[in-house]
Amino acid sequence: MISFRNDYSEGAHPSVLAALERTNLVSTPGYGCDEFCRAAAEKIKVRFACPQADVHFMIGGTITNLTAIAAFLRPWEAVIAASTGHIYVHETGSVEATGHKVYAVPAPEGKLTPALIRQAVLLHRDGNEEHMVTPKMVYLSDATELGTIYTKPELTAIRDTCRELGLWLYLDGARMATALVSGPNDLVPEDFAQLCDAFYIGGTKDGLLFGEALVLVNDALKPFFRNVIKQRGGMLAKGRLLGVQFDAFLEDDLWLTIARHANEMAARLAAAIREKGYPFYAESCTNQLFPILPDGKVDELRQSFDFDFIAKTDETHTAVRFVTSWATSAENVDRLIAAL
Amino acid sequence: MISFRNDYSEGAHPSVLAALERTNLVSTPGYGCDEFCRAAAEKIKVRFACPQADVHFMIGGTITNLTAIAAFLRPWEAVIAASTGHIYVHETGSVEATGHKVYAVPAPEGKLTPALIRQAVLLHRDGNEEHMVTPKMVYLSDATELGTIYTKPELTAIRDTCRELGLWLYLDGARMATALVSGPNDLVPEDFAQLCDAFYIGGTKDGLLFGEALVLVNDALKPFFRNVIKQRGGMLAKGRLLGVQFDAFLEDDLWLTIARHANEMAARLAAAIREKGYPFYAESCTNQLFPILPDGKVDELRQSFDFDFIAKTDETHTAVRFVTSWATSAENVDRLIAAL
Amino acid sequence: MISFRNDYSEGAHPSVLAALERTNLVSTPGYGCDEFCRAAAEKIKVRFACPQADVHFMIGGTITNLTAIAAFLRPWEAVIAASTGHIYVHETGSVEATGHKVYAVPAPEGKLTPALIRQAVLLHRDGNEEHMVTPKMVYLSDATELGTIYTKPELTAIRDTCRELGLWLYLDGARMATALVSGPNDLVPEDFAQLCDAFYIGGTKDGLLFGEALVLVNDALKPFFRNVIKQRGGMLAKGRLLGVQFDAFLEDDLWLTIARHANEMAARLAAAIREKGYPFYAESCTNQLFPILPDGKVDELRQSFDFDFIAKTDETHTAVRFVTSWATSAENVDRLIAAL
Amino acid sequence: MISFRNDYSEGAHPSVLAALERTNLVSTPGYGCDEFCRAAAEKIKVRFACPQADVHFMIGGTITNLTAIAAFLRPWEAVIAASTGHIYVHETGSVEATGHKVYAVPAPEGKLTPALIRQAVLLHRDGNEEHMVTPKMVYLSDATELGTIYTKPELTAIRDTCRELGLWLYLDGARMATALVSGPNDLVPEDFAQLCDAFYIGGTKDGLLFGEALVLVNDALKPFFRNVIKQRGGMLAKGRLLGVQFDAFLEDDLWLTIARHANEMAARLAAAIREKGYPFYAESCTNQLFPILPDGKVDELRQSFDFDFIAKTDETHTAVRFVTSWATSAENVDRLIAAL
Repeated sequence: MISFRNDYSEGAHPSVLAALERTNLVSTPGYGCDEFCRAAAEKIKVRFACPQADVHFMIGGTITNLTAIAAFLRPWEAVIAASTGHIYVHETGSVEATGHKVYAVPAPEGKLTPALIRQAVLLHRDGNEEHMVTPKMVYLSDATELGTIYTKPELTAIRDTCRELGLWLYLDGARMATALVSGPNDLVPEDFAQLCDAFYIGGTKDGLLFGEALVLVNDALKPFFRNVIKQRGGMLAKGRLLGVQFDAFLEDDLWLTIARHANEMAARLAAAIREKGYPFYAESCTNQLFPILPDGKVDELRQSFDFDFIAKTDETHTAVRFVTSWATSAENVDRLIAAL
Repeated sequence: MISFRNDYSEGAHPSVLAALERTNLVSTPGYGCDEFCRAAAEKIKVRFACPQADVHFMIGGTITNLTAIAAFLRPWEAVIAASTGHIYVHETGSVEATGHKVYAVPAPEGKLTPALIRQAVLLHRDGNEEHMVTPKMVYLSDATELGTIYTKPELTAIRDTCRELGLWLYLDGARMATALVSGPNDLVPEDFAQLCDAFYIGGTKDGLLFGEALVLVNDALKPFFRNVIKQRGGMLAKGRLLGVQFDAFLEDDLWLTIARHANEMAARLAAAIREKGYPFYAESCTNQLFPILPDGKVDELRQSFDFDFIAKTDETHTAVRFVTSWATSAENVDRLIAAL
Repeated sequence: MISFRNDYSEGAHPSVLAALERTNLVSTPGYGCDEFCRAAAEKIKVRFACPQADVHFMIGGTITNLTAIAAFLRPWEAVIAASTGHIYVHETGSVEATGHKVYAVPAPEGKLTPALIRQAVLLHRDGNEEHMVTPKMVYLSDATELGTIYTKPELTAIRDTCRELGLWLYLDGARMATALVSGPNDLVPEDFAQLCDAFYIGGTKDGLLFGEALVLVNDALKPFFRNVIKQRGGMLAKGRLLGVQFDAFLEDDLWLTIARHANEMAARLAAAIREKGYPFYAESCTNQLFPILPDGKVDELRQSFDFDFIAKTDETHTAVRFVTSWATSAENVDRLIAAL
Repeated sequence: MISFRNDYSEGAHPSVLAALERTNLVSTPGYGCDEFCRAAAEKIKVRFACPQADVHFMIGGTITNLTAIAAFLRPWEAVIAASTGHIYVHETGSVEATGHKVYAVPAPEGKLTPALIRQAVLLHRDGNEEHMVTPKMVYLSDATELGTIYTKPELTAIRDTCRELGLWLYLDGARMATALVSGPNDLVPEDFAQLCDAFYIGGTKDGLLFGEALVLVNDALKPFFRNVIKQRGGMLAKGRLLGVQFDAFLEDDLWLTIARHANEMAARLAAAIREKGYPFYAESCTNQLFPILPDGKVDELRQSFDFDFIAKTDETHTAVRFVTSWATSAENVDRLIAAL
């Protein structure tokens, strides 16, 4: 069985694992207050050109999102997300469990727009504000859950809208690297720090054992954040593990090298899918592909390949998801192509 | 200024106030453990033909809804509501503040259907259940927020769907009386106890100073409910006030008499609106009317009448809301008609 | 059965009820945005000499406390209370249900001191702050749950300590009136506004049907407070009921007149208890008395009087609680005295 | 600087790291639904003789505790803990953030007793139950936060009390291994499964990179637990990392071998401390020691050693904490001894 189910099916990229081995016996303080974390945070602040930012290393995406939202928002405040947004769909109500509403809006290709954000806010500014939640934060993901990406003009326009409307702009970068190295991308890492109030750089889906680096750019969001991390159970005793991994991740832009490989494997597969005439459920340019296949073909593929189902698109067709990663070999891609 | 803004602009119906005066000096235990509450609960159990139910007298609608949801649901469970539902729109995220997601679905005329409920549940049963909330409860209101009502076949079908899918059926009856005495209604009070797991009978919008009677029919929902009322701050020290009021409310079906008057006033107004050729934003048969008026007319009416704005329907028209109550006089309705 | 169980066994003081009757048919906006609430708030601001304060009328004590704490504190912050404090003991974990820890410290006679507060704070400032809650608020009650009161020097010293340590000072005045008119009291209403960041004036236990007036003195605590009231279910549709009652309550200092009567009845009873040689569990000077009686006497009294049990003090004695109110007659006090 | 600060200063025991390397390229499903997790769970069920138990691999102690409590308790229920308990003191109010009260009782040597538990429960069963939280769970840690341990008779008696009073018994085994191999211990792993409703086996403090194995023995606690793990952000995408580590951990009882080394190092140090005449703040028999040292000596030691401060015990003395682990060398222990 060859897996195209996700980008976290294997362990760590060898360079990351080697770094963990190399530093294994060094004695450090706990909870992320160690030299490895400091060094990795420094690299991130340089790479993203945000020397004043606070960097917090987190264990996974869901706890990053819920901790950020719990820390950033006051009780009556809500977060706006695309209705495909990970926090709305696939985190088991973790945001609501912190007491906050996710106000979801249908968004073409999984992407919010200034118009959608403005409309969501205006609906909550009709004179009955005290009886409604106050939208205070926008949640984006780049790449999105449908594999699409934001362009620099799009992200800039959203930032402008957020500023005008008094909203925090938060970007879930679980798959930021795959977005940055994708064909149509025109964003650079520095842009995230320029345009967002906070964002996270995904490691789990880009070759780490686990780990996301949350970057707090806006000063207003910084105080007492570590207290909330601890309160939510996200403070790793051996926090150094995150520092060590992210240090290797940033070294020579390994994070982008890894993503580039994943995207190349996806592009190879996408070309073949297109060639065979299958349509796509969403126009991804990153490491997730969403082809629509005849049900018979889906059943056939399931014998040898592991992948995800997204939706029945009509009586006889199904949209599926193929995901590539640092660990995807060209050989396995070709096997899948041959079977398509 | 004549108010058609809502059905809670005045104090209590005179019979209710008289009951409070009459009993004012009687000494009773606190927290609803008194004879008045017992007697009123008894009357409700008789009137709704549910001798085994638990009746809890609550202070208002929002705290009734949030207390019920906090008590009924486990942390990972969610409630399905129409996107016009009061808990989704106008309770400042109170349900989310208890940790639970409201999964809102667009519903024509503010009414959920078996198909909408089923679709919402199936979306959460795609094999990724652990990563999604578990829908466990359906929230209906009757009359709805748009003044529409459920028929007995509709409510029965929803109940059947809920039973099949393992969902609690909860009905917000803030405006139950106006629904029950409306023209097209074919439900009787007993039906709510037959068909719902829990429901509340609204008093605040039907002539009480304040108060809703929450009826827990399903045994599974009964244990420790008073503890949750207290924890959420909803236990009135002088709980007897609710018993006294509901006792008067049930006496000779005063609650329906009050609602009948409100509906008659609304019908008189609706007939005039129709006659003048104004369309309606929603087809209400109860004490809330949603005509669409030219903006110039709206501005003119605002000089002498107080009412609510619902939505701009086009460049030059606005849907507004007129609400009638026990305190609405035919004279004032005629003044509004004359001004339309 | 004559009740000395609590100070909320009857309805409202006749003057309060008369005000409700008098205003019953006046039409007002809902949710406390009416002239009665505005007028009552004005009277409170004058009487407490805090023209800049925000006044919110609340339904009961528990919801006042939990709403204030939910609004004032950030997620990692906690409130310090005496271990006899109402929020720690008798509100069914309502504060914890909002996500906040109540750090309880044993306090002689139910009274916190600067030393106790300082010690509680220092325990949380040992270098492991991120791993502990951050005490940020002090909860006092005056009169306390044991009927004792704070003097002006005591309250001033606590305020100074709070200011030095960066703590909000919040005072639960459920029984403020009985404290203010008690013999040893040296505080005046104005002092509460001078010394506290927020406090509430209790109405439920001082002759209203229900209602507490929460006064937010510190500007930092004011924004969006009504949103939190609504979110927590504490916004009364017919909010005017609270304005009408508090207007009558403040008129000619009715609130203090009522409390004076309660205290006189308590003093009459206390003198007799002392004369008969029974000791006291706590040295109350207000309308709650805590005599220690032989168990046989307790059993005997229970035949004709209703009252509360506090604690077994030894094998053969029990501390009980007798509470007086505006509705307690001298005749009934004398009956209890005769039976003691 | 030689660290005796804690037992998580280094990476993983070499055998654990080797297992991670060995399995790094194997492709598995995510979220703990893999063969490694299944195998490790099987080993635990065999070792603890609880074939029917559910085993969940968690990332760290705090998130294990808060997830368990959030899943086990209904909103009005509370957990009883020693006032030194980790959940009460050092988890930043994480339990309260889930909405539940921790009722803390002073407990000699950090150990709860049947009498303390009973007293705590009875205080909440005085007739005012609806106004108080309902104690429903006992939280123990073994070894405790003071390095002390429970004997089999003690734990059995607590279990009996819990059963009688209707309480879940939950044991935090962050340092279970060090307890099991300590001198006075008479418990075996099987006892935990016999006596507790749920417990966790600590990995982080016993040689893993990170990880705790939560064992749900009581059937009532099992349903939907993975949903709560996901909701609280504790579900690791590459869950296999936990399975791989725990598999190595259980192999040939590596977990006990590691703990034995830590205890030997502690015993060597303890003997020297005793010999030098320093008293102890708590009588630990495990890998944490709490000597009381003169302040001058403390200052001197700080030049070369890293360790924790516990409390000032008098004007001139301080209780400190020395912790040993799998990574502590006899050579470093002797250096500390020489410096004492």
